[in-house]
Amino acid sequence: MTSARPEYAALNPPARRLFGTGPTTPDPRVLRALGLPVLGQFDPAFTAIMNEVSELCRFVFRTGNARAFPVSGTSRAGLEAGLCSLIEPGDRVVVVVAGRFGELLAEISRRCGAEVVAVDTAWGRVTEPDAVRAALATGRPKVLALVHGDTSTGVLQPLPDLVRLAHDRGAVVLVDAVLTLGGVPVEADGWGLDVCVAGTQKCIGCPSGMAPLTYTAAVEEMIAARRRPVQSSYLDLGQIQAYWGPDRLNHHTLPTSMTYGLREALRLIYEEGLEARWERHRRTGAALHAGIEAMGLRLFGDPAHRLPMLAIVEVPDGVSEPGVRDALLRRHHIEIMAAFGPLRGRAWRIGFMAYNAEVRNVVEFLGAFEDVLTNAGVRVPRGAGPGAAERAGGT
Amino acid sequence: MTSARPEYAALNPPARRLFGTGPTTPDPRVLRALGLPVLGQFDPAFTAIMNEVSELCRFVFRTGNARAFPVSGTSRAGLEAGLCSLIEPGDRVVVVVAGRFGELLAEISRRCGAEVVAVDTAWGRVTEPDAVRAALATGRPKVLALVHGDTSTGVLQPLPDLVRLAHDRGAVVLVDAVLTLGGVPVEADGWGLDVCVAGTQKCIGCPSGMAPLTYTAAVEEMIAARRRPVQSSYLDLGQIQAYWGPDRLNHHTLPTSMTYGLREALRLIYEEGLEARWERHRRTGAALHAGIEAMGLRLFGDPAHRLPMLAIVEVPDGVSEPGVRDALLRRHHIEIMAAFGPLRGRAWRIGFMAYNAEVRNVVEFLGAFEDVLTNAGVRVPRGAGPGAAERAGGT
Repeated sequence: MTSARPEYAALNPPARRLFGTGPTTPDPRVLRALGLPVLGQFDPAFTAIMNEVSELCRFVFRTGNARAFPVSGTSRAGLEAGLCSLIEPGDRVVVVVAGRFGELLAEISRRCGAEVVAVDTAWGRVTEPDAVRAALATGRPKVLALVHGDTSTGVLQPLPDLVRLAHDRGAVVLVDAVLTLGGVPVEADGWGLDVCVAGTQKCIGCPSGMAPLTYTAAVEEMIAARRRPVQSSYLDLGQIQAYWGPDRLNHHTLPTSMTYGLREALRLIYEEGLEARWERHRRTGAALHAGIEAMGLRLFGDPAHRLPMLAIVEVPDGVSEPGVRDALLRRHHIEIMAAFGPLRGRAWRIGFMAYNAEVRNVVEFLGAFEDVLTNAGVRVPRGAGPGAAERAGGT
Repeated sequence: MTSARPEYAALNPPARRLFGTGPTTPDPRVLRALGLPVLGQFDPAFTAIMNEVSELCRFVFRTGNARAFPVSGTSRAGLEAGLCSLIEPGDRVVVVVAGRFGELLAEISRRCGAEVVAVDTAWGRVTEPDAVRAALATGRPKVLALVHGDTSTGVLQPLPDLVRLAHDRGAVVLVDAVLTLGGVPVEADGWGLDVCVAGTQKCIGCPSGMAPLTYTAAVEEMIAARRRPVQSSYLDLGQIQAYWGPDRLNHHTLPTSMTYGLREALRLIYEEGLEARWERHRRTGAALHAGIEAMGLRLFGDPAHRLPMLAIVEVPDGVSEPGVRDALLRRHHIEIMAAFGPLRGRAWRIGFMAYNAEVRNVVEFLGAFEDVLTNAGVRVPRGAGPGAAERAGGT
């Protein structure tokens, strides 16, 4: 008898089509960049790359802020870095809660010791300025935190009016643009966003693992003037900016390979141009929404504020939500996603972002979706989805 | 006139020899794994990979702990995850401070609200059990935190006696094995380490960006029994284990590509065997230390407790510390590192870890080092370093 020692083969992940809400499929050039030779973090060749990443972050955020760099963690780390660097115990923070990721902002803020005032909004709706004005009216709110586009609801929250209300009350605005940056207009300077945080694995088109963010000189001063240190060392923006800035103070060992991937993903956006990229996402979303409705399915959420890169599709009566996802994965190598909270089991979350934001991908997906739904007993008019998508997505 | 729009070329980082204290050069198979197709985090093909990563973490930590997985940030994030999940405000934490990274453990603990009792130890020395016993004797210490091998001093701290002292006082032990895991023996179970945290970019041989760690069932219960939530959401081990465990509760979007790289790096360790890998690092270190001394240079720190993978080399009088590093980089594409704190400007930090831990790399390095030092006016006996290294590193 020999002892049972498990064996581990070389990795060989299947080539899925990632049509959920992220991670999305990176451009092959981004995947190639990940494998380039590793450099030491203070090598002049690497600090030059870091400076380029900062410049490219400024480009995608549309900002002249000195501070624009990625945090070395996933988008959730970027959100926490912004919140924990701003909040001191007892600070009043108004959080718009209109989906799963608004709830997350409230949870993180509470863990930072904030007194959270939640502006609860029905899932699928945008938050009305009056509700935010009322929440800001009491106490001395320090921060208004909200999500630009929430993958749990498919809704795009208009920002400029809410930013003005916060600024009128002397509060700074922290925006979660994890989903939206690179897919729809995000104007850090134009809308007066004080802190804006993104992710890499959605419309930026890089694997998950870093969180680009930017903040104003006024926020920088607020952090420097804190009464007590930021509770986190790893996510202390004051320390991270001293590492990304000209002083290059050692903080952590920057993830070299992710930095390469992010630079390449940002460079591809720069080459395409933001306006062209927004238009590509808009056209793909028009195809997706038209195709879904032509199949006789219902889209969740306020149609006037629908995110172009997503479709939150209601599950028809009598159909197994996980069964359809499993069949798409098994038969077509396509991933779509389950929904959160009140929508769990009642909706699928479908998305076409970055490299995947092409009408032809929507057409392909709708054909597979029709196949799987038909097998599940749903009466879907044959070819209606792909046909409507092609017409709506035509240039 | 055209407006000046900067151009960004495709990345082409130079192929450096990374002979500093990390990041080290990854095995080409690890770099290739980074570029494999991205999977969604709840894809069964991906959760199977996560399970393998946990198994392989158990293997390298030599533990049967249920909890063994990477935190999605650099080694500093792993250390903070361990500390902030254990510490509640007012808890007494004894920290051995014998180098830069002991200072970091104390800083993180203070930010978590701990009352820190520092056991200050001269750089280059190991901490004597009596000093730790005295620090543990007052109050009710909850945690003893210390660094196994500190890259700032080159010294390996013996652990078993200190662990027993902590356990005698009812404190749990958190060990920073960021440098040592995969390079010298680390026995999570055998030594009774309650929490053990590593990095990826040193003796594991992966790029920076994740932090494998493990902890016991007793620590898991301590975290579950906290009076108040962990102050961080991103680094809350209770939430992260619920994501890595069978419940797969959504926490963050796992960095797919880094997970691939880490799995491959761990798999290579598994194939080599830990004992063989330790012996490879030992032999490489013997070559390095013999070579450096044969060149007439002095090694910093207690020779009885020298880390095999590092050499902290004192800068000869009248020689420019940064000048020698710059010349190595420029003339030989070799990176070595500056020192921290009291050693800044007085020492170089040199290391051969993971893929780079080979006697032939030491021999090559010492030839280049001789060239650069000779140019800097140091009288180095010709060929003495490489020759001594070859003899000391012979099998």
